[in-house]
Amino acid sequence: MTPTPNESDWWRQPAKPLHRPAGEAAARRQAQLTKPPGALGRLEAIAIQLASMQGRERPALERAQITVFAGDHGVMAEGVSAFPQAVTGEMVKNFARGGAAISVLAREQGVRLEVVDLGTVNDPGPLDGVIRLRLAPSTANFTSAPAMTESQFEQALAAGRAAVARAAGAGAQLFIAGEMGIGNTTAAAALACGLIGLPAQLMAGPGTGLDAEGVARKAAVIDRALACHAGQLAEPAEALRRLGGFELAAIAGACIACAQKGLPMLVDGFIVTAAALAAVRMQPTVRDWLLFAHASAEPGHGHLLQMLGAQPLIDLNLRLGEGSGAAVALPLLRLACALHNGMATFAEAGVSEKHG
Amino acid sequence: MTPTPNESDWWRQPAKPLHRPAGEAAARRQAQLTKPPGALGRLEAIAIQLASMQGRERPALERAQITVFAGDHGVMAEGVSAFPQAVTGEMVKNFARGGAAISVLAREQGVRLEVVDLGTVNDPGPLDGVIRLRLAPSTANFTSAPAMTESQFEQALAAGRAAVARAAGAGAQLFIAGEMGIGNTTAAAALACGLIGLPAQLMAGPGTGLDAEGVARKAAVIDRALACHAGQLAEPAEALRRLGGFELAAIAGACIACAQKGLPMLVDGFIVTAAALAAVRMQPTVRDWLLFAHASAEPGHGHLLQMLGAQPLIDLNLRLGEGSGAAVALPLLRLACALHNGMATFAEAGVSEKHG
Repeated sequence: MTPTPNESDWWRQPAKPLHRPAGEAAARRQAQLTKPPGALGRLEAIAIQLASMQGRERPALERAQITVFAGDHGVMAEGVSAFPQAVTGEMVKNFARGGAAISVLAREQGVRLEVVDLGTVNDPGPLDGVIRLRLAPSTANFTSAPAMTESQFEQALAAGRAAVARAAGAGAQLFIAGEMGIGNTTAAAALACGLIGLPAQLMAGPGTGLDAEGVARKAAVIDRALACHAGQLAEPAEALRRLGGFELAAIAGACIACAQKGLPMLVDGFIVTAAALAAVRMQPTVRDWLLFAHASAEPGHGHLLQMLGAQPLIDLNLRLGEGSGAAVALPLLRLACALHNGMATFAEAGVSEKHG
Repeated sequence: MTPTPNESDWWRQPAKPLHRPAGEAAARRQAQLTKPPGALGRLEAIAIQLASMQGRERPALERAQITVFAGDHGVMAEGVSAFPQAVTGEMVKNFARGGAAISVLAREQGVRLEVVDLGTVNDPGPLDGVIRLRLAPSTANFTSAPAMTESQFEQALAAGRAAVARAAGAGAQLFIAGEMGIGNTTAAAALACGLIGLPAQLMAGPGTGLDAEGVARKAAVIDRALACHAGQLAEPAEALRRLGGFELAAIAGACIACAQKGLPMLVDGFIVTAAALAAVRMQPTVRDWLLFAHASAEPGHGHLLQMLGAQPLIDLNLRLGEGSGAAVALPLLRLACALHNGMATFAEAGVSEKHG
């Protein structure tokens, strides 16, 4: 496989510029709605931000897509998770059958949900609603080798891009990326440390439920990985290939593709934010297209949000992944649009304005 | 009018006890759902709390009611608001026509909205969806007299109780009280100071948009009111009658009635929380039935939440009133129920559990 330079370098193209006039028109509309100026707080800012993304004074979020990217991790050989590795494949089945948290959240809100199986040790087999793009049963153990080959990495990025193309084709006005991969808080923490240059201790957390001893072991594993790849991490894409995972690379690809297509992306918690940070480092204009859903209970998430200058919408101590935090925050974006579009102006309602 | 002691004292009756076994059954169910234990954070706690309120392992929030109580304030003679007093009546019309923030939020979520006009200077006249219970064009100016007569106070409390009876009769599973009343952050702040014993400076805020000079004037007005009623505020009900407003008393009545009927109430921002604090001081068992929606931008709100031991769900810098903060938080409660009721268990999904 020898892709053309243009094709394999697609992620180096900049994001679509925001539509400033639409944002300014939305800000003028906000000032005329029957409420004290600014009284809807961050909901006003969200409506204005979405207006400048969608290029329309009145933004709309009727149609959204959630894509959950699943993949297994070679670093699980180091004993970094409270759950067995078979759970990744088992959960892919649970997504398909509608029993997982993200299945419920998507169904409840009329949001299209798809799953992309990028490779699991426990192969769930063909399933309705699951796209099989299995690159390998798992990544390599990144304590001693790059997690992905160059070809796997390119295909994982492209898998994210393809999901965004499907979303845009189906008329989605917002994209949510979710992830499933036992061991992937270890990969996300290693990637974040590699990108930011922080010691593992600040990024390693309990994940699905490690105790203090488990967290210390996880940090030591990450430090070994960082030592193994030292001197090879200056290029963000290379850091992602070496320390990430199939689903992390796919999500980074999805972030970049969303920004290039002009599709707002609502970023979930720790793992998706680590992938988003990689995407922004790979192509800084991507940042304009990211909205941040929630502050995760995973302790490293605050650092990542800070690096991205991001202020999440909710803080409910969630740490489930799957895109669930973003799906829980989605109604707030939708209500921000509904208020912006549906409220009467002072003139329409015959309501007196503020003194002076 | 000489009500029987039982009838005028209805608010002294205790709340319905929570159904602990249903809450325990819900907690057991949470532990079996296909997610790491505790990974849904506060959404798990909400589902369990609602289960113990509704007396069923799987709580439901399909049907909710929002009642907006509107009333004008005699203290407006002291120049305490950035908006003219005519706005209260004008906004009642805006609610009825569907143009206000709360109208949009109710419509968007399929929630029943009603407005109770307790007395405005600018009479909006009869309107569809507005119940006329006008006690007077406004309360008295509480810098020199009690805001309400004893009869007005009793009728205002009863108006809240009647709204809850209508909600329960319509099958509502959750009650949201909203308020509209130009000047009512002054009344709410005065009431809070009277109940807690704080100086006005800690409770007076910008409301709909006062500048620093306006806030200082508002604090001075509240201090005069507190001096006028000094020695008369030990009884919480009497503090509410003297320093509250028609809508504040109605909301306190609604809180107590919700608790007595066993209907969860989702508490909005600064003004509703001040009324809820009065209700809890009048009848402490009410506290069990209150859920807190959001942290308002009004600076005094944090003190009130602390007094009530309350942790709100969202913090989006909202300061609109009308019940809008509670209506914005409603989807989070609904999703908490949907996740609790709709997710598969480990056994149902054939997913492996945590090690050890």
